[in-house]
Amino acid sequence: MATKKRTTTKRTNKMVYYFGKTKTEGQNVTKDILGGKGKNLAGMTNIGLPVPPGFTITTEVCASYYDQGQNLPTGLMDSVKKNIRILERELKKTFGDSKNPLLVSVRSGAAVSMPGMMNTILNLGLTDVAVEGLATATGNRRFAYDAYRRLINMYGDVVMGMDHEHFEKEFDLIKKKYKVTDDTDVPEQGLVELVAAYKKAYKKHTRSEFPQDPIEQLKMAVEAVFSSWNTHRAVRYREVEGIRGLLGTAVNVQAMVYGNMGDDSGTGVAFTRNPSTGENKFYGEFLINAQGEDVVAGIRTPQPVIEMRKWNDSIYKQLISIKSVLEGNYCDMQDIEFTIEKGKLFMLQTRNGKRTGAAAVKMACDMVREKLITEKEALLRIPANDLTQLLLPSFTVVSKAKAELLTIGLPASPGASVGKPAFSAEEAVKRTAAGEKVLLVRKETSPEDIDGMHSAAGILTSTGGMTSHAAVVARGWGRCCVAGAGEVHINADARTFTINGRKFNHKDVISLDGSTGEVMRGAVETSQPSLSGDFSRIMRWSDKSRRLDVRTNADTPADAQRAREFGAQGIGLCRTEHMFFEGDRILAMREMILAENVKDRRKALRKLLPYQRRDFVGIFTAMKGLPVTVRLLDPPLHEFVPHDEKSQKQLAKKMGVKVAAIQERVEQLHEANPMLGHRGCRLSVTYPEILEMQVTAIVEAAILCKKKRVKAVAEIMIPLVGTARELKLLRGKVAETIAATKARRKFNGNLNILIGTMLEIPRACLTADEVAEHAEFFSFGTNDLTQMTFGYSRDDINSFLPDYLSQEILPVDPFQSLDTTGVGQLVEAGVAKGRATKPNLKIGICGEHGGDPASIKFCDSVGLNYVSCSPFRVPIARLAAAQAALSR
Amino acid sequence: MATKKRTTTKRTNKMVYYFGKTKTEGQNVTKDILGGKGKNLAGMTNIGLPVPPGFTITTEVCASYYDQGQNLPTGLMDSVKKNIRILERELKKTFGDSKNPLLVSVRSGAAVSMPGMMNTILNLGLTDVAVEGLATATGNRRFAYDAYRRLINMYGDVVMGMDHEHFEKEFDLIKKKYKVTDDTDVPEQGLVELVAAYKKAYKKHTRSEFPQDPIEQLKMAVEAVFSSWNTHRAVRYREVEGIRGLLGTAVNVQAMVYGNMGDDSGTGVAFTRNPSTGENKFYGEFLINAQGEDVVAGIRTPQPVIEMRKWNDSIYKQLISIKSVLEGNYCDMQDIEFTIEKGKLFMLQTRNGKRTGAAAVKMACDMVREKLITEKEALLRIPANDLTQLLLPSFTVVSKAKAELLTIGLPASPGASVGKPAFSAEEAVKRTAAGEKVLLVRKETSPEDIDGMHSAAGILTSTGGMTSHAAVVARGWGRCCVAGAGEVHINADARTFTINGRKFNHKDVISLDGSTGEVMRGAVETSQPSLSGDFSRIMRWSDKSRRLDVRTNADTPADAQRAREFGAQGIGLCRTEHMFFEGDRILAMREMILAENVKDRRKALRKLLPYQRRDFVGIFTAMKGLPVTVRLLDPPLHEFVPHDEKSQKQLAKKMGVKVAAIQERVEQLHEANPMLGHRGCRLSVTYPEILEMQVTAIVEAAILCKKKRVKAVAEIMIPLVGTARELKLLRGKVAETIAATKARRKFNGNLNILIGTMLEIPRACLTADEVAEHAEFFSFGTNDLTQMTFGYSRDDINSFLPDYLSQEILPVDPFQSLDTTGVGQLVEAGVAKGRATKPNLKIGICGEHGGDPASIKFCDSVGLNYVSCSPFRVPIARLAAAQAALSR
Repeated sequence: MATKKRTTTKRTNKMVYYFGKTKTEGQNVTKDILGGKGKNLAGMTNIGLPVPPGFTITTEVCASYYDQGQNLPTGLMDSVKKNIRILERELKKTFGDSKNPLLVSVRSGAAVSMPGMMNTILNLGLTDVAVEGLATATGNRRFAYDAYRRLINMYGDVVMGMDHEHFEKEFDLIKKKYKVTDDTDVPEQGLVELVAAYKKAYKKHTRSEFPQDPIEQLKMAVEAVFSSWNTHRAVRYREVEGIRGLLGTAVNVQAMVYGNMGDDSGTGVAFTRNPSTGENKFYGEFLINAQGEDVVAGIRTPQPVIEMRKWNDSIYKQLISIKSVLEGNYCDMQDIEFTIEKGKLFMLQTRNGKRTGAAAVKMACDMVREKLITEKEALLRIPANDLTQLLLPSFTVVSKAKAELLTIGLPASPGASVGKPAFSAEEAVKRTAAGEKVLLVRKETSPEDIDGMHSAAGILTSTGGMTSHAAVVARGWGRCCVAGAGEVHINADARTFTINGRKFNHKDVISLDGSTGEVMRGAVETSQPSLSGDFSRIMRWSDKSRRLDVRTNADTPADAQRAREFGAQGIGLCRTEHMFFEGDRILAMREMILAENVKDRRKALRKLLPYQRRDFVGIFTAMKGLPVTVRLLDPPLHEFVPHDEKSQKQLAKKMGVKVAAIQERVEQLHEANPMLGHRGCRLSVTYPEILEMQVTAIVEAAILCKKKRVKAVAEIMIPLVGTARELKLLRGKVAETIAATKARRKFNGNLNILIGTMLEIPRACLTADEVAEHAEFFSFGTNDLTQMTFGYSRDDINSFLPDYLSQEILPVDPFQSLDTTGVGQLVEAGVAKGRATKPNLKIGICGEHGGDPASIKFCDSVGLNYVSCSPFRVPIARLAAAQAALSR
Repeated sequence: MATKKRTTTKRTNKMVYYFGKTKTEGQNVTKDILGGKGKNLAGMTNIGLPVPPGFTITTEVCASYYDQGQNLPTGLMDSVKKNIRILERELKKTFGDSKNPLLVSVRSGAAVSMPGMMNTILNLGLTDVAVEGLATATGNRRFAYDAYRRLINMYGDVVMGMDHEHFEKEFDLIKKKYKVTDDTDVPEQGLVELVAAYKKAYKKHTRSEFPQDPIEQLKMAVEAVFSSWNTHRAVRYREVEGIRGLLGTAVNVQAMVYGNMGDDSGTGVAFTRNPSTGENKFYGEFLINAQGEDVVAGIRTPQPVIEMRKWNDSIYKQLISIKSVLEGNYCDMQDIEFTIEKGKLFMLQTRNGKRTGAAAVKMACDMVREKLITEKEALLRIPANDLTQLLLPSFTVVSKAKAELLTIGLPASPGASVGKPAFSAEEAVKRTAAGEKVLLVRKETSPEDIDGMHSAAGILTSTGGMTSHAAVVARGWGRCCVAGAGEVHINADARTFTINGRKFNHKDVISLDGSTGEVMRGAVETSQPSLSGDFSRIMRWSDKSRRLDVRTNADTPADAQRAREFGAQGIGLCRTEHMFFEGDRILAMREMILAENVKDRRKALRKLLPYQRRDFVGIFTAMKGLPVTVRLLDPPLHEFVPHDEKSQKQLAKKMGVKVAAIQERVEQLHEANPMLGHRGCRLSVTYPEILEMQVTAIVEAAILCKKKRVKAVAEIMIPLVGTARELKLLRGKVAETIAATKARRKFNGNLNILIGTMLEIPRACLTADEVAEHAEFFSFGTNDLTQMTFGYSRDDINSFLPDYLSQEILPVDPFQSLDTTGVGQLVEAGVAKGRATKPNLKIGICGEHGGDPASIKFCDSVGLNYVSCSPFRVPIARLAAAQAALSR
């Protein structure tokens, strides 16, 4: 984003820069002055490419225009006329001429590409006289009048603010009269009549004649471009995008060329390399005897560029050579537009081309090999988020284009999945085991659904946001998830759901695109990802450049292993709550929760201990000596107890207690706002025996590993600390338990277990100096920190977030990308205060933001030691960390 | 709280200070050195009062004791012995003497009164020899042996750490032997035998003989006092109370006097003025032939002090004259202890006496009149919270002492109320209308219960904290409320509740003490408050001294009126949500919520408009031109819809829609964490028409008032703002609506309506510089700010708060008293950043903390303009604000 200060730009007196064979004045002028388009036109002209000549009126003129109360500065039009004269001489055409008139296009163009500003005006210079001149010069009167009616329409619309409808109406009358339906079938005479009708409508609505002086047309068009700089839409766009310090927009006036002058004419668009694969082959399409808009409109089917060899091999060769010149000059893949007018090639546009993640990786590596760019440039050029496309399945473009879109939810976890709906976790497990591919369709998910979520090919929820339970868990596994699809109304009992009145059941095949949130009908074809050598190369270069370590959030040996393969340097967040849901564990967990005294609670905890120990042995082993940060139990206990009567009855039977007792305890555990309730370290304060069991399991697992000569590096993280006293108390209990366990196991070695805390409560950040006295590391939990700093519940935010985004109150969902303005202040305070107490305090981040490139950049800038993210985002984080370090 | 730094105290060489007729050395020494008790004993001796002589070993000696590894400093015992000699000479008694032995008491005494340190040892100096001496000197051998057995018991217990049980056992054996049940009935011989048995037990458990050298007894006792300074309990107490910088404890050694030496002896305690009423009359009681502990134990009934005139008028006169001397010296009401030994009066203790709120007010005013103190001193001396006792009914002490306590909940809203349980709001309304006095007993309350809460004499809830809905609303009305009484298990369907297994129904009379949280059985007698002229005087003086304005939180004309009578200078928080629950309004409100489009919503809102307008006219009129800050709708919409099927069906019928439609909308409105959900200004963003209706009502009400020549000063407050953009957008809508309403009503005058916001989201405080750009005032909503800064839900905090307080993780419930360490940082940031943008920005506080003296002190220190609190706390806030200003 260009954010140059206005004061850094020197004002020159030159208002207009010419580009063409005669001279190219703009080659050393910045795009702050010429705008992006003007700079590129000057650039292409300068390196000798065939560009229709023209000139650029600078952004400084736009600034003057506003400085002088929306008046063009003195001398501008003289200068414009002078440049028109040069243009006339160069092209041997004359403005408004009755034989061979000069026609130009007028376009806006600021230093930053900016939708919302003025559209293009084409064919400017046509008048009642010149139109006949064009007819003579081209030998095509229909063509000339078609151009003229287009000019009047565009001019009326864009310069005079007329309603497009007025022209539409006239066109319809003419088509009716000539009994045709397509514009192109209107005969020459019809167009002549249309021009007359357009001029009449123009007069009626603007109270003036359509100007017959080309210079007047041009002057008005220039003013219209300048005015468009300050329309509400444009101002708002700059505000939202944080575009500041621009002078204004430039105006580009360029000679017209026509691709629709016969079979020796044509037009096309192309990429200098394949934007899907990155392959170094010219890639694009063209249409014979057509204008640029025809390619875009899709009425005629264009041919691949390679076919041009048959039509006009010399033009093809010329394009191939232009590809090299452009890439050599811009050092990047170019997206170009060109027109062939009567066998002569003209370049109309060049810009860096958009590309897929795979293509970005391949091109960057290829260009390093070709010595076009350096490794650093290669890294900075790949949008880190696009690496997802290399890691997860996606729908093929062709198949998706044909699919029927049912609704769009939130793109909660990328990937593509196809299957039939299952309406409960149980059902998902059963049907998957029976060989079906199912999608778990739920209002929202809870930890109880873990098994079903893991079985399902994909997850669809009707409520919940980007950081809802379903979303967080799915991202952890790289499982496709569309969340918060509000139009999906689920009737779990009937095992159906409806979308806009249409009903679906467990037999209907559905496709989910987790990268876009799209829910589609039927089976859309997917393509599987494959990792190339270039991917590894980018990762290697990233590792050389980055300052931040990258860890992962993983709760199972399988996730841990995968993350390590993706390059994770440790586990930054090992949640222990999911571990309690499998098989018999949940029963023991529930016994623990339902226990009425410490003794019974301890008894239940003793049953859980061996499970936890085994989990940790598995994870330590998978991580091969890399650090594993284990977070002690965090969620409120009610998440573990059954809420429906059937399950409560089952539990009562299994436990041999009355169902009323279970219901009473469940009722007791109910909270108005569980997110702000009895959870995190608050559980350890009231039930220290849970902490003791977990720490015992960690220590015993570490000892078991040591005995098997497996290196185990454990870090114990106490969640949701809000006051230094909480941490002091619990840290003491953890340390005591470590010592007691070592003694009981007769282990004298050093386990070097660090004890630290999560900073996720605003108060902990504000008092981080005190908290740090009792912590060996900090890890920012920015999910909760964002919830509390904004006062947003991530589970409920969907009720107002769409309005907040569309009304631009928020630039982005703060759960997706860290709010550096507000939440960032608390992160900075946490770091500064923590390190004021302990200068070398290790500090990381383990919220969802740890995998978001913009947030990673912030983490780098405030001096964190590491970020931790879900396994599938580890490569993204490695690249983003490198980019952050390189662009410091 | 004394927090003198250790470094500020100069060490002297003098270790022991004598007080008595011979000399008084401590009169110019601070209590840092002598301790509080030592200082007072020296003080009383110095002004010529009859104090048993003795000496004080300084706190510096205690510090040396610890500096030297718990050894008494060299020379101390020499000095002690020297002082014992002086004492012997002065009293003509000798330590350990076989005829007339000197006996002393040994007491600890730090500069700050500190429970947890050593108890008193009495009768020190008794040995096998001295006990016979005492028998001779007093002519009472039973008395002598009783004193001796007490010494051995106390010494064994306190100095040697013996278990009290060992002595108890021996005493039981003796009582059995002599067939008596009371200690006092054991004959002389029995006590002689008991001493022998005690000495044996002492030897068995301490492996040493009971020391027969009085100096050795004294040395050991001094060491025991010093050791008690660092017991776990004492250290913890200082930590919790924030007592820092003390040197240690002093030791007071004082000659024994006895009130139990016959009918010319006695003992008593008294206040120099009536501590209940403040009346300037000597007030207390005495017992003839008794020791101090007999008065406390309550076995015998003491006589009022006035009766002493009959018994010994000269002693009475002496006491009256001592009263004047003490008050003249200490300039405050004194709480004294005295003993008469054989017709001679001795003063044992004096300290500032505790008093009721009414007494505090009266005494302070009286003493100003008596020129004992200044107005400033008078103000600083009244505990602001105690004013509650002057404003609300309370239980009489006598009646309460007899009442049966059932359980204790949270003292959520002070006052005393008696009535029979009602289990729903509806029932409370009905039965009250029928003339019954009822208490609303609910698990928790919601805005739907407003009517019932208002009808009830008091409110009892089983969940919810000090800032739960019930608590906040009750405090607003001055209605008695006990909240979060967890032992109360309510069965609303059966219309019963149980407390510890005992069942109560709608016929059982219950009494609630909202100042203590006590729930009592039956009707406890109450006394009604009455306001004195002295109360007004204190208020007047307060108003002269304070810098902070005091506003009130009031939602109805009646509350507004009452608050203005209590001195409120405006309404700082007028909540609009309660207004929607009465009669037909709730139906219109529900129609609005259930509306499926803007048109229907507007239609329902049009029905609400006249109600709101009338509300505001009433409130503006009641406030007579004082500012009224109206907060726009804040709570989530689901609070207004019915959640039980019966009410849903009724609503469906009234609205003519299907019950399923209502259920679906209710379901849709459900939120996982409503506190962090779709509420506050977020409602205005998604449903701007609600804001428009409310602002229209405010503006129309203001215009109506103007026309009736009633001054109306409205301020519109936008709640729950988290980003400057929200406020910018909504401020714009408010301003537009004001302008549109004025135009529609053809009103051209200036209404001067300020538009501001609540700072209650951490992010708003962190970005207050940006927020201030769009605000004409700020008001801190510290309830929500505390919730989010700590991550505590005020509705759920009871599940862990008791543990947090008992384990001293939190010094106090942060919803009661503002957490200056954490939340305070955000308040300070909000003020600093807000005023950085607008230096004169008006800033207040309208959370519950606005009525808490400690929080008011903080508000004063950070430069707020006003505090706003519930009507009944306005006088408290006025006084607290004055105290804050005076103690700056």
